[in-house]
Amino acid sequence: MLEKLKKDVYDANMELVEKGLVIYTWGNVSGIDRESGLVVIKPSGVDYDVLSPDDMTVVDLQGNIVEGRFKPSSDTATHLKLYNAYPALGGVVHTHAVNSVVFAQAGLPVPALGTTHADYFHGDVPCTRALTADEINGEYEANTGNVIIEAIGARDPMEIPGILVRNHGPFAWGKTPAGAVYNAVVLEKVAEMAYKTLTLNPSALRAPDYLLDRHYYRKHGANAYYGQGANEDH
Amino acid sequence: MLEKLKKDVYDANMELVEKGLVIYTWGNVSGIDRESGLVVIKPSGVDYDVLSPDDMTVVDLQGNIVEGRFKPSSDTATHLKLYNAYPALGGVVHTHAVNSVVFAQAGLPVPALGTTHADYFHGDVPCTRALTADEINGEYEANTGNVIIEAIGARDPMEIPGILVRNHGPFAWGKTPAGAVYNAVVLEKVAEMAYKTLTLNPSALRAPDYLLDRHYYRKHGANAYYGQGANEDH
Amino acid sequence: MLEKLKKDVYDANMELVEKGLVIYTWGNVSGIDRESGLVVIKPSGVDYDVLSPDDMTVVDLQGNIVEGRFKPSSDTATHLKLYNAYPALGGVVHTHAVNSVVFAQAGLPVPALGTTHADYFHGDVPCTRALTADEINGEYEANTGNVIIEAIGARDPMEIPGILVRNHGPFAWGKTPAGAVYNAVVLEKVAEMAYKTLTLNPSALRAPDYLLDRHYYRKHGANAYYGQGANEDH
Amino acid sequence: MLEKLKKDVYDANMELVEKGLVIYTWGNVSGIDRESGLVVIKPSGVDYDVLSPDDMTVVDLQGNIVEGRFKPSSDTATHLKLYNAYPALGGVVHTHAVNSVVFAQAGLPVPALGTTHADYFHGDVPCTRALTADEINGEYEANTGNVIIEAIGARDPMEIPGILVRNHGPFAWGKTPAGAVYNAVVLEKVAEMAYKTLTLNPSALRAPDYLLDRHYYRKHGANAYYGQGANEDH
Repeated sequence: MLEKLKKDVYDANMELVEKGLVIYTWGNVSGIDRESGLVVIKPSGVDYDVLSPDDMTVVDLQGNIVEGRFKPSSDTATHLKLYNAYPALGGVVHTHAVNSVVFAQAGLPVPALGTTHADYFHGDVPCTRALTADEINGEYEANTGNVIIEAIGARDPMEIPGILVRNHGPFAWGKTPAGAVYNAVVLEKVAEMAYKTLTLNPSALRAPDYLLDRHYYRKHGANAYYGQGANEDH
Repeated sequence: MLEKLKKDVYDANMELVEKGLVIYTWGNVSGIDRESGLVVIKPSGVDYDVLSPDDMTVVDLQGNIVEGRFKPSSDTATHLKLYNAYPALGGVVHTHAVNSVVFAQAGLPVPALGTTHADYFHGDVPCTRALTADEINGEYEANTGNVIIEAIGARDPMEIPGILVRNHGPFAWGKTPAGAVYNAVVLEKVAEMAYKTLTLNPSALRAPDYLLDRHYYRKHGANAYYGQGANEDH
Repeated sequence: MLEKLKKDVYDANMELVEKGLVIYTWGNVSGIDRESGLVVIKPSGVDYDVLSPDDMTVVDLQGNIVEGRFKPSSDTATHLKLYNAYPALGGVVHTHAVNSVVFAQAGLPVPALGTTHADYFHGDVPCTRALTADEINGEYEANTGNVIIEAIGARDPMEIPGILVRNHGPFAWGKTPAGAVYNAVVLEKVAEMAYKTLTLNPSALRAPDYLLDRHYYRKHGANAYYGQGANEDH
Repeated sequence: MLEKLKKDVYDANMELVEKGLVIYTWGNVSGIDRESGLVVIKPSGVDYDVLSPDDMTVVDLQGNIVEGRFKPSSDTATHLKLYNAYPALGGVVHTHAVNSVVFAQAGLPVPALGTTHADYFHGDVPCTRALTADEINGEYEANTGNVIIEAIGARDPMEIPGILVRNHGPFAWGKTPAGAVYNAVVLEKVAEMAYKTLTLNPSALRAPDYLLDRHYYRKHGANAYYGQGANEDH
């Protein structure tokens, strides 16, 4: 069942390790088959070095387990909120990558300070508000999805494919599981650059919109001219 | 004698190197066999690349050498204080990992700024008071254990399985030698995150208790729902 | 056609990966054959791990494609501006290396704080002015070359073989493609040193000119005495 | 001639690369045979990956080349000043390791903030005064040795086996070439810890003398009790 997607989700999870975004079990990637409405996700708390594609768990969009010998990631409800809200999403990832967590803990967005950021994120990467005690004591993981959706607001989630959850860490997404991981890696790198920029020069300003637009549209949309013609969006 | 524990302690010591927590001989791990009351510990000043399980030294809870051709770690008396005070401990580790040392040198606890921290440490990781001249000139290593115990106070040491000794560095512990090293790795990672958070935003605040509790109890205790059902506590 | 240069440009691009200056497709190196006036450059958006010397694109100094099945780097026009302005350049490189980007985003030059810097850069590494909206909306990549040339001004580009483009990142150059990459690596390293120096001691000052001169001329020019006699300039 | 020492000096140079203290040709190690008064040193500007033990150059204590097809390191005169001044030195090393350079560029000593430092350096690691224009324009490398000696003053160089040359970088030494490199690695690590401690808490204080003494003498001198009894001094 969904063998190709399981392999893609497995590969995307292993890529997290290879790119240095997770240690131990501190991350999870999922992917969705939009036709069947089924989501494939990493099992909860299973070490990456014993993971195989067959260990992936399949759930439906309401969170019912459809296949798999393991419980799905404890963050599954957050992933599902995002898939339900945004039909363009094909993959979702959550990590505790250091520099992204730092902005989440500082309660700050990652400002669009330069072109590295603008090549992939069309504006600041927002930081959600803190969840209330009621939201945390209730359906915590689903409510985490809700505050992400609230923070995205009227934005197109594919134009800013990542976010920081206050006091927690980053979620990122993309057209595919691999694309979601790609965007998580970029977010971590631009967070590192922003951390150093702001500690070197606390009054450093967001780059002007015309520069951010130029770089974003150089890589995305109908007039993109970066790359070899195939749509390179993640 | 205690071949299995020697192997576990050896493996845990080597894991310190693999995880980048020590260079040269800057760390030591021990483990205890509670039935016999014997402690297995790394020998003092022996390089990791020539170490073997047979090189581990066995001492009793009073510090008498029971077996081993090498002198035990110079920090043995600190380990023993902890084993004597806390029956739940199965392994103890000491390192000079950079970010943990940084908080010890700054004389600051690692504040519980987010969920990465709360997943493993139920509250701030304390920094002990400085030892007095008398304590240092006397039974220094035993007194180091004493100020750790003083700083833990009424807390359950298994809920905050690590601490910083002022101007020195981190000690961590767990149910097993491997668990102790796991907690030392987590402490180093959350110390890195806290260092960057506080230099980016010096007024960043501890996460609210209801978030810290939610994450801690998601992974620990009777109502834990992270992982595959086996107790994942370290 | 230009097989040797293609191999050199390919090798220099791969060196960027090996030295940790780029992830994904975030960099490009070119080289010029001055006799024919032809420039060999990395194709746009092609992953380093599928790249081969034959994939390099050949353009003339006006930007016309002379050979190659791929579109050249989207930054080609910047490279060409530099080759046209400075006959001494044999290779040009652009990256998004973290510490160099940090100074570009902070809008600050990398000050010549010490001898590591002075061994390769004869003075501060400048940061260009920001491009105007018109310059960005127009021939953006060519105008990027123009502001670099404006910032270099009367300086000899071979004495300060790198620069930061405001809110963007570093360009570096050299006598050869390999030399350009060498200078980009040095720029990244001295930017890292300068970042840490200035966050440790914000009032740290540029080293005195007589020290900078001594180190620069120890390695460059007629009286150089570093190395084994062959000109070691990059 | 001096085959064993050449091998030791070669190995110590290669260890610099392995420990991440140098890139390209940015470092040099020497060793002395006290009986003959001959010094073996890395040749100037030769890449580490083509270096062999036979490439080492032999000079006498006045700097005359005794054997070797390569010019010795351009810093040879600094090494010789140290060997002539301090009979206890068996090896000397110079690098541009990042965190050590940062303190040299900041013009600050590395303060003895904790036990990691105190285990190897008995007090702050000093930063020399800046050389004057005359000293730089004259016998620069010899004068670098002179300001090091001036900064050491009445201290025992074996108790603080390293120093920072203002606006330049670290020199370290030891009983052997390997010991010198060991001390350079420790200096780099404690400089990293001190950098982070001081940026986290600018009012962090030197550890009290009784703690520094306890740790230093735990590893050094007649009453040392760290290790397996053999003198572990480097």
